[in-house]
Amino acid sequence: MSTDVAALVGRARDGDHRSVARLISLVESASPQLREVMAALASHTGRAQIVGLTGSPGVGKSTTTSVLISAYRSDGKRVGVLAVDPTSPFSGGALLGDRVRMQEHATDPGVYIRSMGTRGHLGGLSWAAPQALRVLDAAGCDVVLVETVGVGQAEVEIASLADTTVVMLAPGMGDGIQAAKAGILEVADIFVVNKADRDGATQTVRDLKSMLTLGEKRGPDAWTPPILSTVASREEGIAEVAAEIDRHRDWLQSSGELEARRRGRVVDEIEMLVVAAVREQMGDLRGGTMLEELADKVLAGDTDPYAAADQIIAKLEEA
Amino acid sequence: MSTDVAALVGRARDGDHRSVARLISLVESASPQLREVMAALASHTGRAQIVGLTGSPGVGKSTTTSVLISAYRSDGKRVGVLAVDPTSPFSGGALLGDRVRMQEHATDPGVYIRSMGTRGHLGGLSWAAPQALRVLDAAGCDVVLVETVGVGQAEVEIASLADTTVVMLAPGMGDGIQAAKAGILEVADIFVVNKADRDGATQTVRDLKSMLTLGEKRGPDAWTPPILSTVASREEGIAEVAAEIDRHRDWLQSSGELEARRRGRVVDEIEMLVVAAVREQMGDLRGGTMLEELADKVLAGDTDPYAAADQIIAKLEEA
Repeated sequence: MSTDVAALVGRARDGDHRSVARLISLVESASPQLREVMAALASHTGRAQIVGLTGSPGVGKSTTTSVLISAYRSDGKRVGVLAVDPTSPFSGGALLGDRVRMQEHATDPGVYIRSMGTRGHLGGLSWAAPQALRVLDAAGCDVVLVETVGVGQAEVEIASLADTTVVMLAPGMGDGIQAAKAGILEVADIFVVNKADRDGATQTVRDLKSMLTLGEKRGPDAWTPPILSTVASREEGIAEVAAEIDRHRDWLQSSGELEARRRGRVVDEIEMLVVAAVREQMGDLRGGTMLEELADKVLAGDTDPYAAADQIIAKLEEA
Repeated sequence: MSTDVAALVGRARDGDHRSVARLISLVESASPQLREVMAALASHTGRAQIVGLTGSPGVGKSTTTSVLISAYRSDGKRVGVLAVDPTSPFSGGALLGDRVRMQEHATDPGVYIRSMGTRGHLGGLSWAAPQALRVLDAAGCDVVLVETVGVGQAEVEIASLADTTVVMLAPGMGDGIQAAKAGILEVADIFVVNKADRDGATQTVRDLKSMLTLGEKRGPDAWTPPILSTVASREEGIAEVAAEIDRHRDWLQSSGELEARRRGRVVDEIEMLVVAAVREQMGDLRGGTMLEELADKVLAGDTDPYAAADQIIAKLEEA
C-alpha cells in the first residue's frame, strides 16, 4: 500500500505523533518509499541540535535523559529521543535498560520517543539512525537526544551522529580504564559523573581529570570537555548539563566546527550508501554466482583476491 | 627499486627468513608490487592451519603462544606467528604485551614471527593481515598462530581470519561479563582458562560453562567449544590445547565447515577490495570535490543523501 508521503510530512510538521512514527517506520524498514521520504524531508532538516548520550549499563542514562527532557520542556523546546539498542550480531539479545522512567513523557505532545534496534551491526548504531534523526529534525524537534549503551565502539559511532556527545560514568564501575581503552576521551564533548552522591565519585572525577591532562595538547580556542557531577534521580546537576550542552553548541557554531562535523557526517553517509549499493550490485553479478565462483578459484590457487576484485570491478563498470 | 618477486617467493619457499620478511613488508606497505606478490603466492596457499589466539591483556597470550610453538616444533612442524597490535584510532598507542617470551624461538629456522600494527582500523586487525597470512602459508608454515589483544571487536575479526579461534581468559579479570557482551561465546572454538593455579579459576570455568549452556542450542554434529585449563608459564595443559586445535581441524574438515569458512573469508576479502577501490574512485570524482559539493547540497536542504549517492553511482559508471 502506497502512502501519501507529502501529506505525511505535512502532518508530522504540524506535530502529529502518529505521522512522525509512520515516517520513522518507513525509513527504518527501508520501504520502497524511503527515497521519497528522504527527498520530502530534505528541505526541512538541519535545525535540530543532536545530542548523543552514552555510557555503560547502569550509569543512569534513562534517568538522565528523562530529567533532561523535563528541563528542555520547561524551556518550551520540542524534544526527540532516539534510544538505540545495541544488539549482538549473533544472539540478538537487547541490553538496553527499561524505558519505564520515560513513561511520564509519553503523553506530552512536545516529546517524541523512539526505540531502535541495531540490526546486527556489531555493537553499533542502526544504519537507519541517521534517517530517523532526519525525521525528528524535520518534525520540528529543537533537540534530539540519541541514547545508546556504550559497548566498545558505540561511543565512537554516536559521536559520528551527534553534534554534542555526552559520555556518562558512575563511581565504582571501573569505567576509567574502559574509557581509556575505548577511546571515549577523544569523542566526549562533555563528561557526566552520575550518582555523585555515592562513594568513589570524587575519585572517578579525579581519574577522569588526570586522564584528560595526559591526553594531547589542545589549542587556545579548542573545546575542553567539562566534567560535571549529577544525581539524576534527584535532578541534581541537570540544569548544568543542559547549560554545558548549549555552551558547546555555541562553541560549535562560532568555531565553524558545527558545519565541519555535519559536512563530514553527510560525506560519510553518502559514501556508506554508495558502498551499500555497490555491495548489492556485486552480490547480483552473474545471477549471484560470480563472487562465489571467484572465491572458489582463489581457494584452488588459480587466482588471488586482488585479481578477483579487478574482475568484479570490470564487470560492475560494464553493467 | 623493483624486486624479482618470483625469485623472492622461491627463496621464501626454500625457508629463507629474510625473503619471507621482505614479502610481508611488500604486502604490508601496499607496495606497487603487491599484486604481483599476491599472484605469485596464489598457487602455494591453502595448506596452513590458521589458529587465532585472543584475550584481554594479561591473560598470558604471549606465554601460551611461545609454549605452543615449542609443542609444534617438537612435532617437526613449521610455525608462523602473526602478532597483531590493536591500536587506538586516536591516540596511536600500542597495547600488546612484550614479545620477550618469544625470543627463544627467534633463532629457530622453523619459526617465523611477525608483528603488525593495525593502522588506525578501530580495535581491529590490520587490512594487511590476510595477505601476511598468505605469505606465511606459501612459505610452508604448517600452522600460523594469529595473536591479538581482545578489545571489543578484535575477537570477532580474528575469528573471520582463523580456521580455529582460541579465546583465553584468566581468573579474577571480570572476563566473564566482558565475554558475554563482546559476543566471544559465539566466535570461540576453544576456551582456555590460563593461570589455572590461581584463586577463582574454578569459578571462571564454571561461569563460562553456565554461559555456554545458556547459549543457543547446537545440533548433534555441531562443535561444542571445550574449556581447557592451563598454566602456560609451567607448560601445563598446553599439549591438550594443541590436541583440541587438531581435533577442531579434523571436525572442520569432516563437517565441510573448513571449506565453508574459507570460502566465506575469501568472499569477504574480495568484497573488501572492491569496496576499497570504489571508495578511492569516489574520492577522486571531479578532482576530489564531488563528494563535498554533494554534502553541501544535502546540508543546504537541496538534496538528500540517497539522491546524492545515486549521482555518485551514475558518475562512477560513466568512468
